[in-house]
Amino acid sequence: MSNDIVEFIEKQVTDTAFGIWFLIGAALVFFMQAGFAMVETGFTRAKNAGNIIMKNLMDFCIGTIAFIVLGAGLLFGADALGGFLGAPTAGMLTDFENYDWSTFVFNLVFCATAATIVSGAMAERTKFLSYCIYSFMISLVVYPIEAHWVWGGGWLAQMGFIDFAGSAAIHSVGGVTALIGAIMVGPRIGKYIRNSEGKVTKVNAFPGHSIPLGALGVFILWFGWYGFNGAAAKSGTELAQIFATTTIAPATSTVVCMIYTWIKNKKPDVSMCLNASLAGLVAVTAGCNAIDMVGSLIIGIVSGILVVVAVIVVDVKLHIDDPVGAVAVHLVNGVWGTLAAGLFATSTSAAGIDGPIYALIHGTSFAEGMKVFGIQLLGIICILAWTIGTMTLIFFVIKKTIGLRVSEEEELRGLDITEHGLPSAYADFVPAVENVAYPEAITVSGDVPVSEAVEVRREPVFAESGSNGPKFTKVEIVCRERMLESLKDAMMKIGITGMTVSHVMGCGAQKGQPEYYRGVKVEPTLLPKIQVDIVVSKVPVREVIETAKKVLYTGHIGDGKIFVYDVENVVKVRTGEEGYAALQDVE
Amino acid sequence: MSNDIVEFIEKQVTDTAFGIWFLIGAALVFFMQAGFAMVETGFTRAKNAGNIIMKNLMDFCIGTIAFIVLGAGLLFGADALGGFLGAPTAGMLTDFENYDWSTFVFNLVFCATAATIVSGAMAERTKFLSYCIYSFMISLVVYPIEAHWVWGGGWLAQMGFIDFAGSAAIHSVGGVTALIGAIMVGPRIGKYIRNSEGKVTKVNAFPGHSIPLGALGVFILWFGWYGFNGAAAKSGTELAQIFATTTIAPATSTVVCMIYTWIKNKKPDVSMCLNASLAGLVAVTAGCNAIDMVGSLIIGIVSGILVVVAVIVVDVKLHIDDPVGAVAVHLVNGVWGTLAAGLFATSTSAAGIDGPIYALIHGTSFAEGMKVFGIQLLGIICILAWTIGTMTLIFFVIKKTIGLRVSEEEELRGLDITEHGLPSAYADFVPAVENVAYPEAITVSGDVPVSEAVEVRREPVFAESGSNGPKFTKVEIVCRERMLESLKDAMMKIGITGMTVSHVMGCGAQKGQPEYYRGVKVEPTLLPKIQVDIVVSKVPVREVIETAKKVLYTGHIGDGKIFVYDVENVVKVRTGEEGYAALQDVE
Amino acid sequence: MSNDIVEFIEKQVTDTAFGIWFLIGAALVFFMQAGFAMVETGFTRAKNAGNIIMKNLMDFCIGTIAFIVLGAGLLFGADALGGFLGAPTAGMLTDFENYDWSTFVFNLVFCATAATIVSGAMAERTKFLSYCIYSFMISLVVYPIEAHWVWGGGWLAQMGFIDFAGSAAIHSVGGVTALIGAIMVGPRIGKYIRNSEGKVTKVNAFPGHSIPLGALGVFILWFGWYGFNGAAAKSGTELAQIFATTTIAPATSTVVCMIYTWIKNKKPDVSMCLNASLAGLVAVTAGCNAIDMVGSLIIGIVSGILVVVAVIVVDVKLHIDDPVGAVAVHLVNGVWGTLAAGLFATSTSAAGIDGPIYALIHGTSFAEGMKVFGIQLLGIICILAWTIGTMTLIFFVIKKTIGLRVSEEEELRGLDITEHGLPSAYADFVPAVENVAYPEAITVSGDVPVSEAVEVRREPVFAESGSNGPKFTKVEIVCRERMLESLKDAMMKIGITGMTVSHVMGCGAQKGQPEYYRGVKVEPTLLPKIQVDIVVSKVPVREVIETAKKVLYTGHIGDGKIFVYDVENVVKVRTGEEGYAALQDVE
Repeated sequence: MSNDIVEFIEKQVTDTAFGIWFLIGAALVFFMQAGFAMVETGFTRAKNAGNIIMKNLMDFCIGTIAFIVLGAGLLFGADALGGFLGAPTAGMLTDFENYDWSTFVFNLVFCATAATIVSGAMAERTKFLSYCIYSFMISLVVYPIEAHWVWGGGWLAQMGFIDFAGSAAIHSVGGVTALIGAIMVGPRIGKYIRNSEGKVTKVNAFPGHSIPLGALGVFILWFGWYGFNGAAAKSGTELAQIFATTTIAPATSTVVCMIYTWIKNKKPDVSMCLNASLAGLVAVTAGCNAIDMVGSLIIGIVSGILVVVAVIVVDVKLHIDDPVGAVAVHLVNGVWGTLAAGLFATSTSAAGIDGPIYALIHGTSFAEGMKVFGIQLLGIICILAWTIGTMTLIFFVIKKTIGLRVSEEEELRGLDITEHGLPSAYADFVPAVENVAYPEAITVSGDVPVSEAVEVRREPVFAESGSNGPKFTKVEIVCRERMLESLKDAMMKIGITGMTVSHVMGCGAQKGQPEYYRGVKVEPTLLPKIQVDIVVSKVPVREVIETAKKVLYTGHIGDGKIFVYDVENVVKVRTGEEGYAALQDVE
Repeated sequence: MSNDIVEFIEKQVTDTAFGIWFLIGAALVFFMQAGFAMVETGFTRAKNAGNIIMKNLMDFCIGTIAFIVLGAGLLFGADALGGFLGAPTAGMLTDFENYDWSTFVFNLVFCATAATIVSGAMAERTKFLSYCIYSFMISLVVYPIEAHWVWGGGWLAQMGFIDFAGSAAIHSVGGVTALIGAIMVGPRIGKYIRNSEGKVTKVNAFPGHSIPLGALGVFILWFGWYGFNGAAAKSGTELAQIFATTTIAPATSTVVCMIYTWIKNKKPDVSMCLNASLAGLVAVTAGCNAIDMVGSLIIGIVSGILVVVAVIVVDVKLHIDDPVGAVAVHLVNGVWGTLAAGLFATSTSAAGIDGPIYALIHGTSFAEGMKVFGIQLLGIICILAWTIGTMTLIFFVIKKTIGLRVSEEEELRGLDITEHGLPSAYADFVPAVENVAYPEAITVSGDVPVSEAVEVRREPVFAESGSNGPKFTKVEIVCRERMLESLKDAMMKIGITGMTVSHVMGCGAQKGQPEYYRGVKVEPTLLPKIQVDIVVSKVPVREVIETAKKVLYTGHIGDGKIFVYDVENVVKVRTGEEGYAALQDVE
Repeated sequence: MSNDIVEFIEKQVTDTAFGIWFLIGAALVFFMQAGFAMVETGFTRAKNAGNIIMKNLMDFCIGTIAFIVLGAGLLFGADALGGFLGAPTAGMLTDFENYDWSTFVFNLVFCATAATIVSGAMAERTKFLSYCIYSFMISLVVYPIEAHWVWGGGWLAQMGFIDFAGSAAIHSVGGVTALIGAIMVGPRIGKYIRNSEGKVTKVNAFPGHSIPLGALGVFILWFGWYGFNGAAAKSGTELAQIFATTTIAPATSTVVCMIYTWIKNKKPDVSMCLNASLAGLVAVTAGCNAIDMVGSLIIGIVSGILVVVAVIVVDVKLHIDDPVGAVAVHLVNGVWGTLAAGLFATSTSAAGIDGPIYALIHGTSFAEGMKVFGIQLLGIICILAWTIGTMTLIFFVIKKTIGLRVSEEEELRGLDITEHGLPSAYADFVPAVENVAYPEAITVSGDVPVSEAVEVRREPVFAESGSNGPKFTKVEIVCRERMLESLKDAMMKIGITGMTVSHVMGCGAQKGQPEYYRGVKVEPTLLPKIQVDIVVSKVPVREVIETAKKVLYTGHIGDGKIFVYDVENVVKVRTGEEGYAALQDVE
């Protein structure tokens, strides 16, 4: 056979087969939207589940519009301004037949990934409108321009920057935007308790409401990542190597994270390990076709530790509230992956380039190797600088105009009901009481209008009854759920140590606002409340009542009611004590 | 190279590569079953979750049997009766080696999609056996015959009907069946409140029990849709165009729906936007390889509004109860997509045909363009007529023989326990009280056997106590969950405006029936009840008791109990009032 | 065209296209990890959800390390020891460029499937560390050696053993390991109630906590199975046949299971049908490319019944506690599938071999046919023997050293909190009270320190009051959730038949241990408790109190408290009776 026939055959085969795979890969990357949605939903609270899902859905949809309008042109239009951006054309509109729709779809799903990373870090308190706006801007301008540098034939591509699937162009960009956003929008109410000097005295954990959904999201993301990293492969060998590195790095980082948290906290941490899988995937993304097995293992080992350290530093040291760990996963490991791709690049991989380490091992030019690393360093700095600059501006403008954040009331009630009129994303389940003390609930004013004179019974309930033996009284307090922690603290201060709390629904003058579910009015007449039962003997009933009134008073409808009952006897099971003695450890 | 070599190479490559893709596409379409299952589960109530999952599982499995028995032959057997149906052969059985299993699998998964659409619209009240039967019939006869017209070389195919992936053949068919089914099975109990003349006075919303699962379903469906629309592509260009239209239309419809519901209801609606994504996908399905970007955008814009209007018209105007919006999504947008494929067909697409609009723009024959549109109109009318005719007959026969619908008691308890012996699909969570007034609970008979004479205490509890100052009494009512709304309404009528409701479990003479979980008997001894606490002073206790008895009485075990307690004091936190004054807004 | 060109073209096309498909298939098999995770999570209890997810995540990640270290070499290294194992090389490390990474990834994901099957059967009581160790050993040695026999060119491969995708090599191995593990770790506390002679008197069902998640897992597994069975196909015809058999068998088994459970239990069983789908898939795996449609149907029919019978035999007869049915699905149907592949092999399939049945039908050598079946029998026996031997040893060593099982206290509290410090995988929902009597809670000691002398009131609460008419008293017991069944039983024995149970949170001397969520301390101060309300008149209050004390006493903090209240009146709604009469059926 003549060489040209062989070449023709090989080209035909490769073009067709890898052309189809390119689009299958794009579909897999689209599916990662489901993964992000599940991770972000699972790791946040149930009262915001509909909102976070809506954000994940809309960033893709709004991003598509933005990408059509301008993004696609800026990204892969003909190189202009010396490699700074692509020149948009009207080809989509005027030349449907010849426009490269394969490239369009592929780049669109990548673009949407960059945008979707942000929502998790800013979850549970960002205004939905503001989210739509900055998400639109990311897909319109911010991402397309820097992606043009890397993948659109721009200046970084011309220099040989290694970022096969986007540790830098996607994950660092999404991650640094997440960081800026989380800082600018501020922490969720109650996340950091500050003393009067503004110093954080306590960091609260807000556990995610569905670890299984979060885990499902991680599995979906990992599955989709084979498309993410592999879609652009051009040969079977390259694809196989990519599948291998994309498997080894996250598996290693997850194992390392398990061991690390096991040693550190005495127990292997589930949600950290789920983050670690993503961290390993993010870190191997840049160099997935440029490194070998050893490189994958090292990238994974470092990622597994890096993600834990970063989550804790961001939260506990820097007091930046990132509910899902987007900064630790995407920014920190995106940067690490970008640099690691340069460090561990090897000529035995499909990319065929030696970084500094393999230059020494293979005996090729160390200078060339260092140049590879230097370009990585330069590239990531420039990409981060671009993103920080543009996104800070965008967030700043939004903050100063329509505002980045929902009101305190909206945040406490949850964004599902306040932003979308969805009373609950889980209408058929009883929601648990939040276990967190909200600062504003603690700050109660001292001037509660207490009508001390009111004595409705001749024999006051708070005095000892005239009969022989102590009197026991149950004080039943029905109040807002979020007052629980404050109430508990206040009661403990006056000597009450035992109480029974239950979740009830209140029905009274305070009505829920009507909302619309699928066009039909939903009027919640039963509002979630808590009922706190306290049985006292030594502590005066009056003191319990007055303390409760002080803590619960806000002056708004729905402050709650207190009921007082007589109790005939009390028994403590463990000791068998009855009556007064049974309450001793309680009061 | 000679032309025949080039052609041979191209054919080999295309046949093999697209042959594999055809089957990958079929696997993706299979995965859409998971999507439908999650959407339908998430958008209905928890008490029917196991049932709706079972239906989604069985329509595929039963459909496979039906398809083997007859369906496949009718669909892609050799054209017979002048294009009306395919002639079944015994090839599957006798000639396994040469039978086209690729076509079989591909068409089977499509067939199952048509069948599965129906279950959502008829969810929460359709008898499982009846479901199995009509689902079998759809896959056996109804779908295969009309699909033969469109895809099996039948009369519509011969006329050039455009329905690449089935807006008409799948979605309109599934959607119109859903409509007929929803009408014939009737609305869920409590969905529409009618006055004595039968006029609907109130439409209740039954919120879905897991928006995150529903959203996951939508993401899975969208992902699978790349296979649904793309599997039959025969070139890389065609496939890329399909991926682009299949992305642009749903993204657009979702954004439009968000804006539309935002303006209409003041808030962007989550579940409507999820429906809008599906609506856009359904609408672009027929013309996915025949339209261009502009067509996709227009299809998306219209779908985004159409789905909202259709959901509301079906529910609020026509009072047809379609829990998941199947009619709005699949029928309305299926018809719209079929017509739009004709309207916006363009010769610049892979299909290469100009509809009327592009005929004008491209200067080709407008008559030919109108013919394209005319065939679409004819096709959709005939497909709908066929489906309406056959399905009405099938539903009618089922209704008159074994019945379409479960009993009221079964519906109220939930289909999981009554149809499948599954006490709960979520055994470890406390189910919330339903927030809906069931009409039969309101219609209480007046002749409750009240033993007015019973006075167990010398000093009757409902009289003022002999002491100085008003008496406060707590009436604690433990009753069936579904009685809550009726009880609340009745209490308000006698002047009670405040109450505390909680979810409890009752244990007594009323026992749950034993059921089997994985072959092991499960005996529920704790039954879900609600406890309503009302504290009264002005309203006589006797009146509260008698009213509760009237409302709660059914004469069956489990009607509930009422307990009466003395209350020592009441405090209203907001005003600081105590005793009688504290209850003033409450009573 | 010359033949060598045609051959070259065909080889190029096939190698490239099926090479890509091979890796897509591997990605689909990876995605099955998500399916296993969801199935195992959904079918177990919420308190262990984080743990089971962690196990599913880690078996893949730990398995990857084990596979790199030794497994891959043993599996597909050059055949050694006469076909017993492969000879590991350092190729991964030293020759990245030429190492077959495609084969590595493909075999790794299969290996992880074998390992992950085990976790479900041993769920809810296996120590996490022990899990990591045996999971590592499976991927390091146990699986690779027997898989070398079948797929690595080992002795079974040389004999012509039919196991295309692993009914034997994967599922039987995972399933028999699950069986040994379930036996050695023992049943979950409360699963089997034994009398004093150790005979099981009652089998309790522990319903799975999320049937929808379990069902999603099954759909994901089925979807992934197209990759599992299809990935190694080498022609379009073979792939299409595999897709067909892989669809027909599970669809059939599911329908048969539905009918079978419908007849047997009067109702079609949801969770059994989900198991049946998997059973059909497992059984068709060995012969997916060697059988025809009739074979698929027969395999499916048998699987659908086999899985139900096996689940019940394992649970109700053998008293082996396999929460998810792994033994019935993977072992029983794995063996059945291995034998069926031999029985129903047909030369009309891609594999082209006649088993005994088709030898008779086709008139080919029956002796050859029986040889095919004989090899299957020999193969499955040897594979099981190898697995039983090695795994029994591994489990035995673990049991004798670090132990296989968590402590009773850990198991009762749940593995999420005790093994991973995760207070709840569903932090925002109220968990339901478990409906199971734990035996250790029933065995209460008789010598409870009862201080009979304590009489805090002059008029004892348990005597009739001096006034006219009977006295009613409410006894309110707040105690540990797991004591509910014992308490209920004890109360019924003394004549109490009615009670109201509710879920409350207790706050007192008993505090939860601090745990870490994402590096931040979580201190649960509210502990889940139940409150049992009993209103008595005839039964002496003192007897109720003493009985409760006996049942609830453990001597540890948190035993609970009992409160006694006066009740003014009781009304029974159904009869209208009041006072003493109203309580008659209750007491």
